[in-house]
Amino acid sequence: MREAVESHGASVRVRAGAGEYSVLIGHGLLADLPGLLDSHVDANRFAVITDENVAALHTEALVEKCREAGLDATLLTFPAGEASKTRKSWSILTDEMLDAGFGRDTCVVAVGGGVTTDLAGFVAATYMRGVPIVQVPTSYLAMIDASVGGKTGVDVRHGKNLVGAFHAPALVIADTAVLTTLPAVQRRQGLVEAFKHGAILDRAYLDFLVSNVEALLAVDRSVVQQAVVRSVELKAGVVTEDELEAGYRQILNFGHTVGHALEAASDFALGHGSAVALGMVVEARVGARLGVSSDGTAERLEAALSTLLSPERGPVDLERVVGFLGADKKARGGRARYVLLRQLGEVDSGTGWTHDVPEAIVTEALEGLIPTR
Amino acid sequence: MREAVESHGASVRVRAGAGEYSVLIGHGLLADLPGLLDSHVDANRFAVITDENVAALHTEALVEKCREAGLDATLLTFPAGEASKTRKSWSILTDEMLDAGFGRDTCVVAVGGGVTTDLAGFVAATYMRGVPIVQVPTSYLAMIDASVGGKTGVDVRHGKNLVGAFHAPALVIADTAVLTTLPAVQRRQGLVEAFKHGAILDRAYLDFLVSNVEALLAVDRSVVQQAVVRSVELKAGVVTEDELEAGYRQILNFGHTVGHALEAASDFALGHGSAVALGMVVEARVGARLGVSSDGTAERLEAALSTLLSPERGPVDLERVVGFLGADKKARGGRARYVLLRQLGEVDSGTGWTHDVPEAIVTEALEGLIPTR
Repeated sequence: MREAVESHGASVRVRAGAGEYSVLIGHGLLADLPGLLDSHVDANRFAVITDENVAALHTEALVEKCREAGLDATLLTFPAGEASKTRKSWSILTDEMLDAGFGRDTCVVAVGGGVTTDLAGFVAATYMRGVPIVQVPTSYLAMIDASVGGKTGVDVRHGKNLVGAFHAPALVIADTAVLTTLPAVQRRQGLVEAFKHGAILDRAYLDFLVSNVEALLAVDRSVVQQAVVRSVELKAGVVTEDELEAGYRQILNFGHTVGHALEAASDFALGHGSAVALGMVVEARVGARLGVSSDGTAERLEAALSTLLSPERGPVDLERVVGFLGADKKARGGRARYVLLRQLGEVDSGTGWTHDVPEAIVTEALEGLIPTR
Repeated sequence: MREAVESHGASVRVRAGAGEYSVLIGHGLLADLPGLLDSHVDANRFAVITDENVAALHTEALVEKCREAGLDATLLTFPAGEASKTRKSWSILTDEMLDAGFGRDTCVVAVGGGVTTDLAGFVAATYMRGVPIVQVPTSYLAMIDASVGGKTGVDVRHGKNLVGAFHAPALVIADTAVLTTLPAVQRRQGLVEAFKHGAILDRAYLDFLVSNVEALLAVDRSVVQQAVVRSVELKAGVVTEDELEAGYRQILNFGHTVGHALEAASDFALGHGSAVALGMVVEARVGARLGVSSDGTAERLEAALSTLLSPERGPVDLERVVGFLGADKKARGGRARYVLLRQLGEVDSGTGWTHDVPEAIVTEALEGLIPTR
């Protein structure tokens, strides 16, 4: 699945619907953004969507470079932050594109973190019933998770990502050089998803991450390249198997059922990575309690995660957490479903990829880990 | 492609992505709506979306019938009319579903005309990144056009259907008995799309429609069955070939490039069917002027359409029409593209399915047909 890209990168292919797309991973790839767009996308105009922070750091210069190369590129910005991932921002960006006369011969280019890849992805998915998108992730989270697999969406007051669409990108360009501009806290939070890939699919990769945490946080070129490639390979393998999350893809939600509920119950005071890390430990403990996981799995996972994140466990209202669990997207008949580990690197699939778990057992695992009020 | 459904209908299969779906056509099919839902859809709950007029005519009784059969069905309504086909209505319906706790195990059932199938389709396409939809068209337009092919969308101030998605239905149930409740003007307007199917694909079918206009308007059971089945077969053949409108499907836009622009320039005073009928004649004349169509094609099409609709040609502002043409979804580099007839029943494909036409020739054809101001 992996192949060399010139001298300085790798390419992972992802199958989506009838077609497939490439995830290019390498240090400095964006130096040739115009050439990559030109060779991978059939479009006459480019709408480059980015948040205001990333615009100043990277995107203004990238758009300028595209123009110099003769591409018709227009910059569209929105205020940085999860608060922008709304139907309102989506409407505004869509209207700005319509005002500027973009037709179906347009390609959206999303430059940014997970908020941008999700929001711009939903704009592209619904603009004139869908135009191509090139994802240019600039955070760990977006490189190893959000930009691969075609999920797009926005948040509503009922929860995160409850409105959206599947819309596979035409190309993903992961230039690991941009990670050096990422704040340290976002590096830690984003790498939680890499730990998740290891926990559910590849124990040796989890061990590699634990051994190299400091190098990853310092954005060591060679270690980062290995980690991003392996995470993308693992995720690509899953979404190629089950693009629309009918079954197997649900394993990627490990830690997220509880994580999303914790995030929402904290009114998003808890970072996404911290919430998912806690969620993984809670869900691992649920697996232990049900006798699904082998002995010590939850403890070993907790120890691995502690090398990345120090605990951030402000008291949460348990009743609100349970309320959000019942409203989870993947709930069936009002009950959340859980991915359970058999051991580190392996998910239990005894009765399907997700499990129905008695509420009392989830509550018990939550109470044992997190100060509740 | 066609097969018998019990004793009283036909079934046309449509391929979409990796799967396919059935369009059931018959008089009185809705008497067994609960059974059809149960046998065709894997869902625990049903969100039935309909406009307030159709609710009173049909949908309240249908929901009651589903409940009596043990299905968990909830009615959601919106104000009737094209003015409801907006992002705002889409948001409200989505939020009502979230308030009611609908999860991903939900199926949307759309009961109504083209506005409902498009609007509810967009709700289903984007609810938790997509839930299945069953289309229950209640108008000619929706039966033969809007409910087949998976196009969904809403209007924005820049034009119609500019925001939307492709979302294939799980099932389409075309119960021709409900056409008797359709106002006469909507019967005429909706049948224009059937004439279009004949004009681009099947001259014999066009002749059949002309010979049976009065029976179609009177909703004669046997003639209506034949026409709906033939139109659905023709449309299904096209969208099976090219679901996402990459090429061949564009032939279904015959008459619509000019039609949509006329509709918009009249501020929607001109009915959709009337606008498309005029658009077909204008585009047929463009074909004649360019020497693409055989002699008499435009005149024969105009004569055929005159059996259905009397001319409705209020003066339009030519400059506004031309402005809307440039903003067409399928425009390339700001220029609209045109489907041209070779002869009745056949589209020209000499240089692709659509043609770039000098603006002066379109303007000339418009001026020759429509009083401009």
